[in-house]
Amino acid sequence: MSTRTIANWSFSLTYSSLPLPIIQSAIQSFYNWTGCTVGGSAHPATTIARNALTPFFGAPISTLLGCEHKTTDAQHAALLNGIASHVHDYDDTHLETIIHPTGPVAAALLSIAETLQRPVSGEEFITALVAGIEVECKCGLAVWPSHYDVGWHITSTTGSIGAAVAVSKLLGLSPDQIAYAIGVAATQVTGLREMFGSHTKSFHPGRAAQNGLIAAILASNGYTSSLEALDAKRGWVNVVSNDNKLQNLVASLGKEGSWEIEKNSFKPFPCGIVIHPVIDGCIQLHPRLDGSGKRCQDITDVQLTVHPLVLELTGKTKPRDGLEAKFSVYHGAAIGLLLGKARPGQYEHAVVTDTEVISLRDKFHATADEKCRLDECHIMINFASADGVPAPIVKHVDHAVGSVHCPMSDNQLTEKFMDQCVPVLGLERAYGASGWCWALDRHKDIREIKNVF
Amino acid sequence: MSTRTIANWSFSLTYSSLPLPIIQSAIQSFYNWTGCTVGGSAHPATTIARNALTPFFGAPISTLLGCEHKTTDAQHAALLNGIASHVHDYDDTHLETIIHPTGPVAAALLSIAETLQRPVSGEEFITALVAGIEVECKCGLAVWPSHYDVGWHITSTTGSIGAAVAVSKLLGLSPDQIAYAIGVAATQVTGLREMFGSHTKSFHPGRAAQNGLIAAILASNGYTSSLEALDAKRGWVNVVSNDNKLQNLVASLGKEGSWEIEKNSFKPFPCGIVIHPVIDGCIQLHPRLDGSGKRCQDITDVQLTVHPLVLELTGKTKPRDGLEAKFSVYHGAAIGLLLGKARPGQYEHAVVTDTEVISLRDKFHATADEKCRLDECHIMINFASADGVPAPIVKHVDHAVGSVHCPMSDNQLTEKFMDQCVPVLGLERAYGASGWCWALDRHKDIREIKNVF
Repeated sequence: MSTRTIANWSFSLTYSSLPLPIIQSAIQSFYNWTGCTVGGSAHPATTIARNALTPFFGAPISTLLGCEHKTTDAQHAALLNGIASHVHDYDDTHLETIIHPTGPVAAALLSIAETLQRPVSGEEFITALVAGIEVECKCGLAVWPSHYDVGWHITSTTGSIGAAVAVSKLLGLSPDQIAYAIGVAATQVTGLREMFGSHTKSFHPGRAAQNGLIAAILASNGYTSSLEALDAKRGWVNVVSNDNKLQNLVASLGKEGSWEIEKNSFKPFPCGIVIHPVIDGCIQLHPRLDGSGKRCQDITDVQLTVHPLVLELTGKTKPRDGLEAKFSVYHGAAIGLLLGKARPGQYEHAVVTDTEVISLRDKFHATADEKCRLDECHIMINFASADGVPAPIVKHVDHAVGSVHCPMSDNQLTEKFMDQCVPVLGLERAYGASGWCWALDRHKDIREIKNVF
Repeated sequence: MSTRTIANWSFSLTYSSLPLPIIQSAIQSFYNWTGCTVGGSAHPATTIARNALTPFFGAPISTLLGCEHKTTDAQHAALLNGIASHVHDYDDTHLETIIHPTGPVAAALLSIAETLQRPVSGEEFITALVAGIEVECKCGLAVWPSHYDVGWHITSTTGSIGAAVAVSKLLGLSPDQIAYAIGVAATQVTGLREMFGSHTKSFHPGRAAQNGLIAAILASNGYTSSLEALDAKRGWVNVVSNDNKLQNLVASLGKEGSWEIEKNSFKPFPCGIVIHPVIDGCIQLHPRLDGSGKRCQDITDVQLTVHPLVLELTGKTKPRDGLEAKFSVYHGAAIGLLLGKARPGQYEHAVVTDTEVISLRDKFHATADEKCRLDECHIMINFASADGVPAPIVKHVDHAVGSVHCPMSDNQLTEKFMDQCVPVLGLERAYGASGWCWALDRHKDIREIKNVF
């Protein structure tokens, strides 16, 4: 019954029933997503796909964020905005499942909203976005951790389902049609972790957006699938995992304290979230290092103490390019200490291969410590100079910025947005887009987004 | 190394290295596929999808088989031809894996061939088709049976990979690019068995064609994935199965006696292949029944003895529509005995719900017998009449028509093709299309297909 329960819940969800913090989380999620999408619009993973697929584009209706005057059909817009939003590993994170929830859902939803022959209010858009993200994350929790462990990229495998629910909601489908849309989405299980470090990693949320979009479009036209796609004996949950906690999770949909979007977090740095405590600490140490006159070349070594997952996932000592650098705690640490920031610009090829960066990067040593939490780290910088051995500098990061205990403020999110959008849109347009996105709940017709970005 | 080995093998495959029986199998496979695609072009699963997706169509270049004057972009043509080819469950079968191999591969290949700015010879087309089908079936064998048992629709999960290889071959990709295309295809694992009996079953091979097509297009433009997508620790084989026989299977690619396309078989009846012995036997009994004057209403009961899988997969006693009837050994038996044929027309709603058909259908009883092979069955018809109890009629089908031991002849394939194509194309056009498809290996440019169908 879980699939039908989800369909009924989504069908019945109304804007007026959404608690204010949920609406705020939805706006933040959308805001962060648009900034990341613009920021990723010129990355090779996005531009290669855009150029390769241009011969297949349909009627130009839906906006490709960050591409001036560029529109395409809804299916390609969903794919390409989805790719762009994830390509810098800078998007949001539902920490319990490490799903990046907004990408697949918002990419599908925005692209179809622009094709409708009627105004789509911000309130309606937010309601559909919340429905999609809630179902996406509940599905993720239902199959966690065996699903991820075996090798699925959980963002896209659940993202297809979330996108289908969101688009179904916007199209006003009946509960049975929503269940059928979930079925068509669930049967397209997209995303292997084996693709991490390649262009195809960001293809995943883009394709998930397309999967969900085509599912809802087909279902809205009478296409049938299964009404028990998620929970049947050979349904999605049992095929893709050894876990099955769907029933209880579905029962908690929309209950107080059980909203998943409320637990969404936003990355201050464009790389794997496990590196964030180290980067946060190194950035905090950057001015002290400069101010004390102790130059980087005097450093003999830097000792990091981190959670074991940091080394398992991001232990790359000699990253060769920007994509590999995202999986190197050493690169993150070096740019934080040397440059005082870790933004997309610090993951560009020229920085990753810069001799000064490499020289400092090679001085870092990391030790795994089970007692160290995932959002915690210890840093100790040792020096040698002609004047003797100066005292080391030490730093303990208790909760990294961007974690649940230390979330990014709206001002920090705005700074991140502007940092990504100004180079692409110019200052004035980026400023206008920022204001428009923060006001999402008040728009009469979100189709006007094509005049904003 | 298996993924790279596949890429290298496909890259090096030439038409002149193909043994004659392989070329003949490829032509038969393509021939049977085009007929099935035309035959399925007006089924609701196809027309709903076509109508639903028309607003997203790109430049009209690739042919939708069976739709007069109708072309669309290659991606939608791949999807819709793939759906149409499978919707009557009438397509081909690689019996060791029950993959329907030609659908995903040919749908992708034909759609992209029509977009090329150069002639595509029949020889080139056949070489790419063989490459795709060989890899598809080897991948299927590598994960069989755990992959199917857990709930994957193996036709589409492997079809994405086969389609990627075939399109890559036609586009002339390098071995590394082919491996990347395999990666993008492998990461899109499409098809849950839970969808059987609904429109979404035939969506699977169509979407697989699209998956492989977009994979090859992206790879041809420099998109990266993994060079070990199939064989890595968290690669496709390990994620989607508990089996892993890929390495030996890959080593057998193109070796004498190891061609998979040679084992491809063609269905004489549009339903699950396990029902075929019963239908074959009942059709053979149809004239005897008529000729003896023993009318169907005198039948008291019909006893079937079949392989246990027949009842597990097709034990539906009261099918309500054409799709359900495909999973009813009783419907297949009844139409065979009553009407002397089992073609798509006998799976239409009016026949499935006909009172005479239902009355006879209800007289059938099936018993599973472990000793009965999958392509074998026993039939015993019992009668009662006013004149006493006539002797029963018995029939033993040793090898059903269409099985490996009793393959369909080219004449039978032509009859099947014409039966599907004449109602759609008219006699003259169907006759021309048949001749054109049989001559596939001799065409200078297969792009002329748009003038043929």
